[in-house]
Amino acid sequence: MKTGLHFLVAAKRCEIDELQQLGRTSALVNITGRLIHGLQRERGLSNLVLGSQGAHFTEARNAQVAECLQLEAELRTCLDCLDTNAAHAGNGARLFSRIAYVLHGLGALPALRGQVDRLAWSVRQSTEAYTRLVSGLLAVVFEAADSATDPEVSRLLVALFNFMQGKEFAGQERATGSALFAAGRADAPEQQRLLHLIDSQERCLQVFGEFSPAGVATLWDQGQDRATLADLERMRRILCTASSGSALDANLSLPWFDACSRRMDGMKAVEEALAAELLCVCQRKMASAQAELTAYSALSENDTGETPDLAFFMAQPAGAPGASAGLNVAAQGFGPHLERSILELVQEQAQRLQTIGDELDTVRASLNERKVIERAKGLLMAHRHLSEAEAHKTMRQMAMNQNRRLIEVAEAVLAMAEVLPPPR
Amino acid sequence: MKTGLHFLVAAKRCEIDELQQLGRTSALVNITGRLIHGLQRERGLSNLVLGSQGAHFTEARNAQVAECLQLEAELRTCLDCLDTNAAHAGNGARLFSRIAYVLHGLGALPALRGQVDRLAWSVRQSTEAYTRLVSGLLAVVFEAADSATDPEVSRLLVALFNFMQGKEFAGQERATGSALFAAGRADAPEQQRLLHLIDSQERCLQVFGEFSPAGVATLWDQGQDRATLADLERMRRILCTASSGSALDANLSLPWFDACSRRMDGMKAVEEALAAELLCVCQRKMASAQAELTAYSALSENDTGETPDLAFFMAQPAGAPGASAGLNVAAQGFGPHLERSILELVQEQAQRLQTIGDELDTVRASLNERKVIERAKGLLMAHRHLSEAEAHKTMRQMAMNQNRRLIEVAEAVLAMAEVLPPPR
Repeated sequence: MKTGLHFLVAAKRCEIDELQQLGRTSALVNITGRLIHGLQRERGLSNLVLGSQGAHFTEARNAQVAECLQLEAELRTCLDCLDTNAAHAGNGARLFSRIAYVLHGLGALPALRGQVDRLAWSVRQSTEAYTRLVSGLLAVVFEAADSATDPEVSRLLVALFNFMQGKEFAGQERATGSALFAAGRADAPEQQRLLHLIDSQERCLQVFGEFSPAGVATLWDQGQDRATLADLERMRRILCTASSGSALDANLSLPWFDACSRRMDGMKAVEEALAAELLCVCQRKMASAQAELTAYSALSENDTGETPDLAFFMAQPAGAPGASAGLNVAAQGFGPHLERSILELVQEQAQRLQTIGDELDTVRASLNERKVIERAKGLLMAHRHLSEAEAHKTMRQMAMNQNRRLIEVAEAVLAMAEVLPPPR
Repeated sequence: MKTGLHFLVAAKRCEIDELQQLGRTSALVNITGRLIHGLQRERGLSNLVLGSQGAHFTEARNAQVAECLQLEAELRTCLDCLDTNAAHAGNGARLFSRIAYVLHGLGALPALRGQVDRLAWSVRQSTEAYTRLVSGLLAVVFEAADSATDPEVSRLLVALFNFMQGKEFAGQERATGSALFAAGRADAPEQQRLLHLIDSQERCLQVFGEFSPAGVATLWDQGQDRATLADLERMRRILCTASSGSALDANLSLPWFDACSRRMDGMKAVEEALAAELLCVCQRKMASAQAELTAYSALSENDTGETPDLAFFMAQPAGAPGASAGLNVAAQGFGPHLERSILELVQEQAQRLQTIGDELDTVRASLNERKVIERAKGLLMAHRHLSEAEAHKTMRQMAMNQNRRLIEVAEAVLAMAEVLPPPR
C-alpha cells in the first residue's frame, strides 16, 4: 500500500521530470533562436539580391543559405531526439502542433529560395514569406516559455522570448527600411509600419528588462555600440520623417542594412547569454532537487511504518500561509521522531509548491497579457479588415485617448466581440 | 527524420494522453467525494456522541466509522493504481503532495477516533480535526480541477469542486448548529461563524450554477425538498437571531441535524450526477480524439514524402484568428493534394488548440480567483491574528464599503503585503 512518504517522493520526482524536460526544451529554444537569426540574415540578403535585380549580394546570400541549411539540420536533429511519447507539462499538444507547422514551413523553404533565385517574387513577397516562417519558429519558443513550471526558469524564458521577438521586430525594421531606401522614395504606409516596428521592439525589450537577470540586462544596456546606435537613429529619423513620395537616398541602403545588422548581431550575443543562463539554472535546480530526492529516499528506507499520530491535527495545515518554510531536508534527523518529521516534510513541500505556484502565476501573467493583446489585435484585423500595424495603432491610440494600459484596451476589445457583426 | 505529420500525430496523442489522465483523475475525484461525504457524517455523529457524553448515537457512529473504513480502503486502492511515474499535466507535484498530506491524515484517523471513543476531546476539537482532514481531501479535488487541459472537463471539475466545497460548508454549518443547540445557549462568535458558513456556501453554489451543465443545475434547483428547506431556514433564523447568551432549545439538536443531513444527502445525489457526467464527457472526448488519430494515421501511411510547396506562404498563418475552422478530418481526401491537406490539418489543429486554450483561460480564471482570495485571507489571518471567519468578514466588509468585487479587494490586500509589518 502506498504511504504518504511514497507520494512525497513521487511529487519530488515530478519536479525533477519537469526540470529535465525544461532542460530539453531549453536546448530546443537555443537552436531555434540560432536558426531564426540565420533566417533573418537570409531574409535581409535576399531582399538586397531582389532589390538589385540579382546584380549584388548573390554570393553573400548563397553563403547565408548554406549556413541556414546547416542550422536547419541541427534543429531537425534536436527534434528527432525530442521524446514525442513523453507528456509535456500540459501543453505538449500545442508545442507539437507549432513544431508541425514549422516543419511544414521548412519543407517549403527550397521553393521560396527558388522564387528568389529566379527573381520571381517581389521584395515584399519574399519578406512576408520569411517573416511567416520566423513567426512560426517564435511560436515554438512561446510555447516552450508557456510550459515552464518553475518560476525562475519561466522568468528566463519570458525574458528570452521577448528579446527574440524584439529582435525579430528589429529584423523586420531592417527589411522595411532597406526596401524603402532601395526604392529611393518615401511611402506613408511603409513609414507607419516602420514606426510600429520600432514601437513594438521597444515594448518587447522593456519586458525583457523586467524579467531578465541583472547580469544579462546590463550586458544588453552596456554592450550596445553607441556609434552604431547613433547611425541607426539618424537613418531612422530620415526614413520616418520624409514626406510621402519624396526622394530617399538609395546609397543609404547598405549603411542602413549594416547598422541594423551590427545591432542584431549584438542582440544575438545577449540571446546566447540568456540561453546559457537558462541551461545553467536548469542544471542547478536539477542538482538540488536530486539531492532532496536522495534525502527522501533515505527516509524511505528507514520508514518503520509507524502510525501517524495526533500531531497531524495539531500542526499548521499544509500549504497554510506562514507554515514552516525553509526546512532543510538533508539536515532532518530521523529515527524516533520519524513520523513527525515526515509530516514536517509534507508540510514544507506543500508550502514550497504553493509559493512556486504563486510566483509562477505572476510570471505567467505577462505571457497571458500577450495572448490577450494578440487575440484582440486579431479580432480587429478580422472585423475591421485592418493590417496588423493598423490594428496595433488603433489599440495604442485607444489606450492613449482613454489613459489606459494596452492590456485593458485589449480586454475591452474582446469583451465587445459578442456585439460586433461577424467578419466578412 | 520526423516530419510535420509526425508532430501533428504526436500533438493528437498528447491530447489523448491528457484525456486518459483526466479519466483516471475523475475516478479519484469520485471516490474522494464519497469519502468526504462519509467523514462529514462521521464528524456529525461524533459530535452527537460527544455532546451527549456518550449516552446516544454510539451505534450510529460505529456504523458510520465502518462505512468510512470501507471508503478509505477504496480510496487507497485507487491511489495504489495511480501511476506516480507518469507525468501529470504540469501539476503532478502539487497533486501528489496533497495526496501525501491526506494519507498522513488518514493514518492519524484511528488516533482521532480513539479520542472520541474516550470522550477525551471536546466537540470543537473533534470538529476541527475532521474538518482539517476533509479540507485536505478537498485540496486533492482542487488540484485535479486545476490540472484539466480540456475546457469542457475543466468546467465540470470547477462546478464539482465548488459544489463539494459548498457541501463541506453545509457540513460545518450542521456541526456548528448542532453544537449550539446541544449547548442550549446562543454564543456570538459561533453565530458569526454560522453566518460566514451560510454565506460561503451560497457563494460556492453560485459558482457551481455558473459552471454546471444545465441538466445538473436543474437537478439541484428542483430536487431540493421544500419542506426540509423551510425547516432548515426556520432553525437557521432561530440560531442566528438569538441574542448572545440567551437560551436555545436543546431539543432542536436532532431535528437540526436531520434537516441538515437530508439536505446534504440531496447534495450527494447532485455530486454523483456531476461525477457521472464527468466520466461520460471524458469518454466521449476520448472516442472522438481516437477517431481523429486513426484518420491521421491513415494519412501517415499515405505520406508520399512530397515536398511542401509555396502554399505554406499563401495560406492563413496557423492559429491566426479566422483561420479555417471546423474542417472535418475524417472527411479529408488525400492523394494528389496530400501535402495541401496536411497543411490544412496543421492549421486546423493549431486553430482548435488556440480556441481550447482561450476557453481554458476563461474557466481557469475562476480557480485563480479562488487562489487569490485564499492567499489574501491567509495574509490577513497571519498579520492581524484573525480567524478565517473574521478575515472573510473583513474582506466582505471592505468589498461592500468600497463597492468592489471580493477578488478586487483580495488583489488590493495582496498588493499591500509588502508594506505590512511582518507577522507576529
